[in-house]
Amino acid sequence: MVTTEQVVQALQGVMDPELNRSLVELGMIRHVEAGDGLVKIALALTSLACPLKDRIVADAKRAILALDGVRQVDVELVEMSAEERQRLSDGQAEPGQAAHLNEIHHVVAVMSGKGGVGKSLVSSLLAVALRSAGHRVGVLDADITGPSIPKMFFAAGARLNTSPLRAILPAQTRTGIGVVSINLLLESEDQAVIWRGPLIGRAIQQFWGDVLWGMLDYLVVDLPPGTSDASLTVMQSLPLSGAVLVTSPQDLAGMVVRKAAQMTQLMAIPILGLIENMSYFVCPDTGKRYDLFGPSHAEEMAAQLGIPFLGRLPIDPEIAQLCDAGRIEDYPLEAFKPMAERIVTLASPARQPIFGV
Amino acid sequence: MVTTEQVVQALQGVMDPELNRSLVELGMIRHVEAGDGLVKIALALTSLACPLKDRIVADAKRAILALDGVRQVDVELVEMSAEERQRLSDGQAEPGQAAHLNEIHHVVAVMSGKGGVGKSLVSSLLAVALRSAGHRVGVLDADITGPSIPKMFFAAGARLNTSPLRAILPAQTRTGIGVVSINLLLESEDQAVIWRGPLIGRAIQQFWGDVLWGMLDYLVVDLPPGTSDASLTVMQSLPLSGAVLVTSPQDLAGMVVRKAAQMTQLMAIPILGLIENMSYFVCPDTGKRYDLFGPSHAEEMAAQLGIPFLGRLPIDPEIAQLCDAGRIEDYPLEAFKPMAERIVTLASPARQPIFGV
Repeated sequence: MVTTEQVVQALQGVMDPELNRSLVELGMIRHVEAGDGLVKIALALTSLACPLKDRIVADAKRAILALDGVRQVDVELVEMSAEERQRLSDGQAEPGQAAHLNEIHHVVAVMSGKGGVGKSLVSSLLAVALRSAGHRVGVLDADITGPSIPKMFFAAGARLNTSPLRAILPAQTRTGIGVVSINLLLESEDQAVIWRGPLIGRAIQQFWGDVLWGMLDYLVVDLPPGTSDASLTVMQSLPLSGAVLVTSPQDLAGMVVRKAAQMTQLMAIPILGLIENMSYFVCPDTGKRYDLFGPSHAEEMAAQLGIPFLGRLPIDPEIAQLCDAGRIEDYPLEAFKPMAERIVTLASPARQPIFGV
Repeated sequence: MVTTEQVVQALQGVMDPELNRSLVELGMIRHVEAGDGLVKIALALTSLACPLKDRIVADAKRAILALDGVRQVDVELVEMSAEERQRLSDGQAEPGQAAHLNEIHHVVAVMSGKGGVGKSLVSSLLAVALRSAGHRVGVLDADITGPSIPKMFFAAGARLNTSPLRAILPAQTRTGIGVVSINLLLESEDQAVIWRGPLIGRAIQQFWGDVLWGMLDYLVVDLPPGTSDASLTVMQSLPLSGAVLVTSPQDLAGMVVRKAAQMTQLMAIPILGLIENMSYFVCPDTGKRYDLFGPSHAEEMAAQLGIPFLGRLPIDPEIAQLCDAGRIEDYPLEAFKPMAERIVTLASPARQPIFGV
């Protein structure tokens, strides 16, 4: 099994015959997906009518096929925008500018204001559902002091790597979701990150601009609780398509979630809808349903806020178990799938096409 | 029923016969407790041997008894410290310096790093248990963007008042716990507080220094999730006796709580112990116990951290209901009482006597 990094390293040696610079340095590699024997890349050309097209593709394939364990290479061709072509001819595509290689179609934030209602669970399930529907998906864990995402997707020991471009490469999950989180950079997952707001904001900006996300249909951003630095930075610096709000049945949670909704509206971010987590528990022995955190008010709340109600998730001991084992991708998607589909129809493409942000 | 504010206002008119300034302005009023017909105050004298003692006490009693509904006034006399006497003779006791009137014996922070594990619930139950054991108790809600404390103690509409000293007066709960929270200052409880870190820190410092807490045996500080600004400010600016950590059975929560423990240790704050919340659910129909968030690891975790394990709290739909109704004081204390008693024996008096901080 080859890694994204190995693929990028191999492509580092492939030159554009005209410009005589590496495809990687020129920002032509837009997406790398390294699977079991199969590698998929997306290659951005100045024009799809480029006469050197076939030669470039053949060179790239040959370089990747030379890697151990690769049996097949699929190359998807895309065309650079006028702006990108301009930047290329200005010679601005310098190594280290990872963001230049990114093309992200939708950025969806998951927030709640309140802690512990299941933002990270919803972020993860959304990513898994989108991935299983065939989308290219990344997860940016914007919770710097309490990052939960890596534990849900990985057994211990997953780490972020740095590409030859000096860009951060997302860790790849079993089903091919790219994940970036501060916890993938720490020596130990228990290590505290004791930072005041400005550093938190800067870390989030780096996770956006210095990460080689590549080509993504959806980037899911998992926000921490609160309406302070992390949320503000995400809302101000990232071109969000919209936000999904997560609540739990308690009035107490509802109150704090309404604060988050107010913030989202003040920042002119569209709210895609509301999901209620920990709605109820169905006793496995009797089949009886218990409203452990009180009766649900989520539909009322969504109506009051004038936003779509996307659905409920029950308390399920299996989820807790799979999350703790890094196996959230094994959780059955039946309940969540319709919510993810609804989010796909609601999330308009990013407010502006996001090339090289 | 008279309010603390009315009592302070009445005492505003009582002069120290020697200094010819109001007892309130001189910082001699250290505690006010306004009950049903009974008012208790603590009066700080420069010396308990003060020859004018009886006259001052009689004047104060008369002023308070003149208020509608007051049948009895109890006055407790305390002696100022040498430092306080010095400050008084230097004329530093200016109106507006609320902190000068405060005498707080123990400051206990409740934290977890993780959101939604029940920090505010533990803070509230701790305050209620301490109060029911006869202690004078306050709760400082240091969660500025997601404040939960007021909803647990009050029906809608509770507000903070300002004393004639221009100090903030805590809202008093039914059993006489003083509560300060940003939500008691907002027009509506749903209003978002969209502040970056420095403002959050300043708000917490004000809740400490500009509030007329009076004389308290215990001030419980409810921290927000995370190890950023709010936690840092509380640990750096408040003279904590120690911190109580709250976790839930999920490994995921445990990981983030260990981050909080690490921060606490780095900041040299004693950890008083660990409480596990949402440990299990006992099905009311079958009596069977379900570990909804996985099996408990709390005792192991406490042992690893080298801190006392204080106990577990189950998931109880009644708690959610009482919290949402502002009636946490009605919740039976059986389960929590031993934990509170343990905390009392573990919390050494504040690291330095906290007069007029």
